Amino acid sequence: MEGTRLDTGRVRAARGVIDRGFLDTPLFRCEALEAELGCGVSIKLETANPVRSFKGRGTEVVARGLVESGSRAVVCASAGNLGQALAWSGRGRGLEVTVVASRFATVAKLERIRALGARLELVDGDHELARDRAAAIAQYEGIRLVEDSLDLETCEGAGTIGLELVESGASFDTVLVALGGGALATGVGHVMKELAPGVEVVCVQPSGAPAMTLSWHERRVVTTESTDTIADGVAGRRPIPEVLEDLLQVADDAVLVSEASIIAGMRMLFEHAGLVVEPSAALGIAAILEDRERFAGRDVVTIVCGSNVDADAYQRWVGR
Amino acid sequence: MEGTRLDTGRVRAARGVIDRGFLDTPLFRCEALEAELGCGVSIKLETANPVRSFKGRGTEVVARGLVESGSRAVVCASAGNLGQALAWSGRGRGLEVTVVASRFATVAKLERIRALGARLELVDGDHELARDRAAAIAQYEGIRLVEDSLDLETCEGAGTIGLELVESGASFDTVLVALGGGALATGVGHVMKELAPGVEVVCVQPSGAPAMTLSWHERRVVTTESTDTIADGVAGRRPIPEVLEDLLQVADDAVLVSEASIIAGMRMLFEHAGLVVEPSAALGIAAILEDRERFAGRDVVTIVCGSNVDADAYQRWVGR
Repeated sequence: MEGTRLDTGRVRAARGVIDRGFLDTPLFRCEALEAELGCGVSIKLETANPVRSFKGRGTEVVARGLVESGSRAVVCASAGNLGQALAWSGRGRGLEVTVVASRFATVAKLERIRALGARLELVDGDHELARDRAAAIAQYEGIRLVEDSLDLETCEGAGTIGLELVESGASFDTVLVALGGGALATGVGHVMKELAPGVEVVCVQPSGAPAMTLSWHERRVVTTESTDTIADGVAGRRPIPEVLEDLLQVADDAVLVSEASIIAGMRMLFEHAGLVVEPSAALGIAAILEDRERFAGRDVVTIVCGSNVDADAYQRWVGR
Repeated sequence: MEGTRLDTGRVRAARGVIDRGFLDTPLFRCEALEAELGCGVSIKLETANPVRSFKGRGTEVVARGLVESGSRAVVCASAGNLGQALAWSGRGRGLEVTVVASRFATVAKLERIRALGARLELVDGDHELARDRAAAIAQYEGIRLVEDSLDLETCEGAGTIGLELVESGASFDTVLVALGGGALATGVGHVMKELAPGVEVVCVQPSGAPAMTLSWHERRVVTTESTDTIADGVAGRRPIPEVLEDLLQVADDAVLVSEASIIAGMRMLFEHAGLVVEPSAALGIAAILEDRERFAGRDVVTIVCGSNVDADAYQRWVGR
């Protein structure tokens, strides 16, 4: 590995500032899924915490840094999970948190952001417009903009998942990572490549939001005009160049999966693992479903990264 | 506390023999539930492990003891979760495991017992008949009978949940514990009463399977003719005298809840916590729903003890 922007020492240090409710999450084999999928399947569960996603790991690092630097306010764009996590981390430290989101975002996520006391601004467009608006607010108000995946704290927080995988002592062939902006993939990928280089890091993105995957394959930033996926947590159109550079160092592959496979993955996680997951968290299972031969007989870990769904939509996807 | 059959030192020692996949389970506040229930709600999640229930904590202690004593085989009666856990713990140690269950048991549980390599015997009756049959097999084959709740290992394993609650550093007013045979309640209750005596231990049982709760209130064993509840994991009719004696020492209250409240609890855990739970694991939420005034403003922990459900039945209960 030529080197990324991340440093494993900083990832280790991050553990010391993250609320322990986000750390040391369950890692367990799910044999009922293995029988269906034809490979060893272990689940790293990132949903059993106050914000139901892994994003708290990163926002804890962000918020701690803000407090140490004397900052009082912070703004981010979010599809919902980062905003919820930043609201949670900020509230406990007396920070004023503003979250900018698309008005088409998952309702349950927006409700939780409000309930956690953050100021919520909705834009009449997609996540990229929310990013632009958040940047404008930061500039106008002179406050810190948290840019998911670009800001190293968000990657370092995610990287602590990688440390836990390595330190579990379990042996894996492959880690399947949901790919959106890239914080999860570069964070986990950096740690795996440094501490367990034999483990394959495979990123998974919906075919309906393929910008980062296309960029990884072409080794240059490729943007798309629009997105069309239920996996709201990973639906970006404009990859960040620095993040792509890191991803090129740590990812062994990046694959695209169909909406049908994502839904099938969600249903399998419900039926065979008893897990409610949001679409982004089913991407790993979807990748196995789309290429059973590739994974046959291998030991695979999939990071179940979030469970924030609208109950009605979930029932529609998973019900029969 | 006058003393139970349990010893906190032995509960501590149990931690050393339990596979770590069952230990240090998530404990987190669920504010979305708090808004609905009017009290502080923390969840102790016992479903993110290879058998989707807390029972592995106890069967690990049982199986370790069997191996140390040179035993090769073991039999238990189970509504499904103990059998699954014993099959898991026994398989890893080369033990022959026989599980006796009612033929009316939850299909998913029976399938997992078989898949884990245990011999499964079905009886044409309820759980109490399965207990009789398991005892007969043990006697005939000269092998160890594991009696849930009577055998101290099962209570000590459950007690490790109590240790984790105490050591979390969080402060609670009340712990809500599902009550069936009593291992979970006496195990957790013993530890709480010894290490955190100010925390109220409230046991919750379905009105359709009230034998242990009636016994606790009358301070003598009360049996019932039949059971009628979807909470299969706690549907016993014949309380064990020794377990009742322990329960009288450690429980502050034992309450009964309706099937409607159990279903409402399952639905709330799905909608507001993103958790699939089996009916027994919703008893705590059901207790709050049935007596909001009692719990108003208090900080309550509920142990989500299992998630083994038949997917179709779950959809029927939780769907709208």
